[in-house]
Formats: sequence, structure tokens, C-alpha cells
Amino acid sequence: MLWAGTRLKDMENNNAATASKTPVTLLGLGAMGTALARTWLDAGHPLTVWNRTPARAEALAAEGARVAASAAAAVAANRLVIVCLLNDASVDEALAGADLNGKDVVNLITSTPAQARARAEWARERGARYLDGGIMAVPPMIGAPEAGGYVFYSGSQALFDQYREVLAVPAGTSYVGEDAGFAALHDVALLSAMSGMFAGITHAFALVREEDIDLSAFAQLLGDWLTAMAPAVHQEAVHLKTRDFTSDVVSNLAMQVAGNQTLLDTAEGQGISSELLLPYYALMSRTLEVGSPEEGTARMAELLGK
Amino acid sequence: MLWAGTRLKDMENNNAATASKTPVTLLGLGAMGTALARTWLDAGHPLTVWNRTPARAEALAAEGARVAASAAAAVAANRLVIVCLLNDASVDEALAGADLNGKDVVNLITSTPAQARARAEWARERGARYLDGGIMAVPPMIGAPEAGGYVFYSGSQALFDQYREVLAVPAGTSYVGEDAGFAALHDVALLSAMSGMFAGITHAFALVREEDIDLSAFAQLLGDWLTAMAPAVHQEAVHLKTRDFTSDVVSNLAMQVAGNQTLLDTAEGQGISSELLLPYYALMSRTLEVGSPEEGTARMAELLGK
Ligand SMILES: NC(=O)c1ccc[n+]([C@@H]2O[C@H](COP(=O)([O-])OP(=O)(O)OC[C@H]3O[C@@H](n4cnc5c(N)ncnc54)[C@H](OP(=O)(O)O)[C@@H]3O)[C@@H](O)[C@H]2O)c1
Ligand SMILES: NC(=O)c1ccc[n+]([C@@H]2O[C@H](COP(=O)([O-])OP(=O)(O)OC[C@H]3O[C@@H](n4cnc5c(N)ncnc54)[C@H](OP(=O)(O)O)[C@@H]3O)[C@@H](O)[C@H]2O)c1
Repeated sequence: MLWAGTRLKDMENNNAATASKTPVTLLGLGAMGTALARTWLDAGHPLTVWNRTPARAEALAAEGARVAASAAAAVAANRLVIVCLLNDASVDEALAGADLNGKDVVNLITSTPAQARARAEWARERGARYLDGGIMAVPPMIGAPEAGGYVFYSGSQALFDQYREVLAVPAGTSYVGEDAGFAALHDVALLSAMSGMFAGITHAFALVREEDIDLSAFAQLLGDWLTAMAPAVHQEAVHLKTRDFTSDVVSNLAMQVAGNQTLLDTAEGQGISSELLLPYYALMSRTLEVGSPEEGTARMAELLGK
Repeated sequence: MLWAGTRLKDMENNNAATASKTPVTLLGLGAMGTALARTWLDAGHPLTVWNRTPARAEALAAEGARVAASAAAAVAANRLVIVCLLNDASVDEALAGADLNGKDVVNLITSTPAQARARAEWARERGARYLDGGIMAVPPMIGAPEAGGYVFYSGSQALFDQYREVLAVPAGTSYVGEDAGFAALHDVALLSAMSGMFAGITHAFALVREEDIDLSAFAQLLGDWLTAMAPAVHQEAVHLKTRDFTSDVVSNLAMQVAGNQTLLDTAEGQGISSELLLPYYALMSRTLEVGSPEEGTARMAELLGK
């Protein structure tokens, strides 16, 4: 994906004067929408933007974007319409009066699989083709292929294939199937893991922030440690696939329960609430009851349901 | 740290035939103790081991370790005594009858800062010097300097300085101060963040494990994503230090609350319990009430207490 992204940009820059670029409409100029917009402008795509609060479009106008007076006017301007508003509910509000007939809608809002599927149906009823996207990047990673950001897409493969190069301008692309909800499922699964990581980071900073510890040096240790431990995901996958939860375990469940007890006791000693750590400890203890002390943590995913 | 570890090993291997190596006693041959033991044996240190369940010492005996019949006998054998049992409580059980007078005790058990300080006092009363350690590695990272594992040490600096090279054999070393509880505080803070990350990973696998998604390919995406996002710790540190929570925010709190709502809704749609995600969402919502929609997440650490 990185390679594809880089190469595309080079091609486009080289051809900027000669080739005619697909015009793009973009709805939503928050932090993410603004970052996306810049990459299409930089790559020479004619760009029409709209934002509920018009002031946010001013800088982009100065950089060459056309600013539409309404969402409906922005939609009318081009066939390809990219949506990057806050959430699913804002789409209904913003697009209530827009004519979507014959449009190609790419919705980059973070949504549930069910919302994405309903939105695909909503677009179909209005005569539009629909592609759903889940952005795996923060704004500084947009237009910076070396940062490794990308977007999951699912829904109309024909739409994806037709605009593959336009879509690859801001970030790498990963098409995961015709089911419009599948990009959101991938997106939300990864964001859920990140949410847990940030919960842990929040707790870690709470433990040390009033101690004689430089927080920037601590952040470096913390980032390095999480990066070193992230590859543990691979053993979880193998255990869940094989349902052999004990092979090659390096941190057994009994030891981990004891270790997590130490985390809770430390929080108490430091006067910090354990609310972010408790549910994982509770689930781990329940897993130890149904599993064996020698297994790893993978079975915990099964105990969360379905 | 990596450099020091590598260099030390080379030196020791070169000198193995000539130099006399510090003899080491090691109590506890679980997954971690066994990994530690091998590195000292490989580096040519005379090694005396003890484990509550004697069978676990057999393989090491075949590799050259002396096996003591009791913890007291193992302690009597050498001045330097390394402890790698399950938890703090097991130290009292295992060392009840041992004479620690004149010994140098290095305790690598995961413990709370309070337990480490009490254990330092316990050792002092028995005439021993004391160093506490917190291992930032899983067993496969021990003796593999390129994997980046290391051990936080705090307590007697004289002890640390005297055995610096012995301690550097299994993993890198990081001495963080005379307060015996400080290594544990660093250790537990990093482990707490990891615990949150694994909670998130557990939830992510629960969401997708019954879908038409290859779990190994998913694990790769998950590990890459967490690795790409871990550097967000640096902005948290800056925000907590300056208490300016809005500078350079790329993912504002209002958007993150909406995003986390989508994570909860997705879990419900997939029939998965949200128990691991809920407390972070609740704390984030509370933070939005006291903070501003434009700030990031750093203030959440302040709301956890102290
Ligand atoms: N920032 C990130 O790190 C990141 C990463 C991945 C995915 N995303 C996703 O990208 C999308 C946009 O995020 P963002 O960071 O750009 O958020 P943001 O900076 O908070 O911007 C939100 C945007 O949505 C608009 N909006 C909100 N409610 C609206 C409504 N009812 N009608 C019309 N417009 C409305 C806002 O318009 P106003 O200017 O008028 O308020 C603004 O343009 C979200 O779905 C988010 O989950 C963001
Ligand atoms: N494995 C890791 O990933 C990892 C990473 C960092 C730190 N650590 C820390 O390293 C320490 C050891 O972990 P581990 O992975 O080696 O655990 P483990 O494989 O479960 O081994 C536990 C060890 O403690 C002994 N033990 C338990 N209760 C005892 C008691 N009451 N009296 C005497 N011995 C007792 C066990 O002896 P028996 O053989 O007789 O049961 C065994 O030697 C823990 O504090 C852990 O938190 C582990």
C-alpha cells in the first residue's frame, strides 16, 4: 500500500499539467476532512467543498477549492461525493435536501456495520452507488504514505475500481468486500483495540504523573513497551483458530491474574481509581475458572459473547 | 541498553575459559526463571537453582546447573541470590527458613511499590543488601538483546554497580533510583498500559472471530495499527506537563466520544459484551463535561484520581 500510494503521487505530480483529474466533492471540513481536502488539491483534482460552519472552508478556498453554499449544491457539482462528517446522524441532517441520483457516494465516517449497511440501502434508494470507508489514520498521517495510514473500503466494487486512484491520493486503500458493513467492522475492531490501549495509557500516566518522573521520558518507555508487546496478537490468533490455548504460552493465565492483582493493588497504593483496569481483571479471573492455569489469554475473547 | 547487552555477551564468551564468573543463585524456575537461568549458564556463570516443584530443575541440571535441595540451601550456596517466584507472598513462604545475613538479594518478582519497599526493609533486617527489579520482557526476549527487553532496577545502588555485568546477561538494565519501590512503579505503570492494550485486543478478536475474516491476517492489521498509534503517548505527556490540553489536537474529544459510542453500538450489533470498553467511554464522557470539545484525551488521567 505504501508503495502504491507513493508511486501514484509521483505519477500525478508528473502529469499534473496534462492529464485531467477526476473532480471531487467533499462534505465536512473537520480535522480529517481538511487533511483529505489538501491531498486532492495538491494532486491537482478540482475540489468542491462544503462545511456546516463556513469559516472552516476559507483556508481551502485560498488554496484553490471551490466552496459550495449548501451540501445540496456541493453534491450537484460532481459525480464523486466524499463524506467526512462527525457521525452517521450528521449525514441525514446534512444531506436531507440533496439529489443523489446518479452520484457515487463514498462515506468515510466512522460508523457501525449496521449503519453502513443501512446507508448503502439509503443511497441505493436514491439512485446512488455506495462505498463505505473506515479511516485507519489520524490527520497527520493523511498524505504521508510513509506513516502507514490507510482506509478500509467495502461496498460497490465497481465504484472502488473506477476511483481506485482518486481514493489512493490521501492514504493507502484496502478493499475488504461487497458487504457495505465490512469496512466498518474492520475499522471498529481496530479502533476498539486502540481504545483499550489508550485506556491503559491513561491509567499509566495517572500512576506516575505526580511522581518524580519526567513524563516525556516516561512516554518514550511506554510507547516502546507497547510496540514491543503488540506482536503478542499473533499468538492470540493462533490460539483462537486452533482452540489449543496452551501451546507456546510464555505468560500463563495464573501468573497474569497474579500480575494484574498487583496492578490493582498498585493503583490503590497510588490513590488512583482502578476503573479502567477492573473489567479485564474480572474477565481474566473468570477465564481462569473455566480454563487452565497454563493457558494464555486467548479464551477471554470467547467469553465476551457470540 | 541493547548495545551494552550485546557487548557484554561477546566479552564474556571470549573470556569464558579464563575469567572467573560471579556465581549466581536463582530461586524459581517458572517460564521466566528458566529463561533467565539459561542465559547465566550460557555465559559461564556457576549457577545454583531451586524450584518448589523439583522436576522443573531437571533440564537445567543436565545443562550444568547445581540443584539445591531447599531454598535455604540455594541461598547458602552463593552471595548473589536472584528471586523469580510468582508473587510477593511466595517469597515469605519460600524463604522462611533461609539465612540472608551477608547476602545480596535481587528480587525480580512483579510487585507493588509498597511490597518492594517492605521487602527491602525485610532484607535489611536480615542483614542483606536489596535490589528490586521489574522485568520488561516476556521469556523469549530474555537473552535476545535485539528484542529490546530490559529490567528496571531500584534500591541499593552499590549492589547494582557491583553486579552490573551479571545483571546485564539476561536483558538490558535500567537503574531508576535508591527508592526500592521505584522499579515496581515503572514496571506496573507499563504493565497497566499493556493490560489495557490486551483488553482492547481481546475485544477486537471477539468482534471478528466468527466472521469471514482470517484471524492471522487480522492479527497483522491489529499489531500494525497499535504500533502506528502507540506514539500518541508523546502528545499525552506534553498535554499533562503543560496542562494545555488543546494544542495540536488531531482527534478531538467530542469526535472521540462519538467514535467510542460507535464502538459500543457495534459490539451490541455483533452480540459482544462491551464490558472491556465501557469504563473508558464513561470516563471520556465525564471528561467532555469538565473539559472542552476541542481538547484531546490527556485530562482523563487527571480524573482518575490523585
Ligand atoms: N480525527 C481523527 O483522528 C479521525 C481518525 C479516523 C477517522 N475519523 C473520522 O472522521 C470523521 C470526521 O472526524 P474529524 O476528526 O474531522 O471530526 P471534527 O474535527 O470534530 O469535525 C467534525 C465535522 O463534522 C461536521 N458536523 C458535525 N455534525 C454535523 C451535522 N449535524 N451536520 C453537518 N455537519 C456536521 C462538523 O461541522 P462544523 O465545522 O460545522 O462543526 C465538522 O466538519 C469522523 O467520523 C471520525 O470518526 C477521524
Ligand atoms: N512470564 C512472563 O511473561 C513474565 C514477564 C515479566 C515478569 N514476569 C514475572 O516473573 C515472575 C515469574 O513469572 P513466571 O512467568 O516464571 O511464572 P510461572 O511460570 O507461573 O512460574 C511461577 C514460579 O513461582 C513458583 N512459586 C509459585 N508459588 C510459590 C510458592 N508459594 N513458593 C515457592 N515457589 C512458588 C513456581 O514454582 P512451582 O514450579 O513449584 O509451581 C514457579 O517457579 C512473576 O513475578 C511474573 O510476574 C513474568
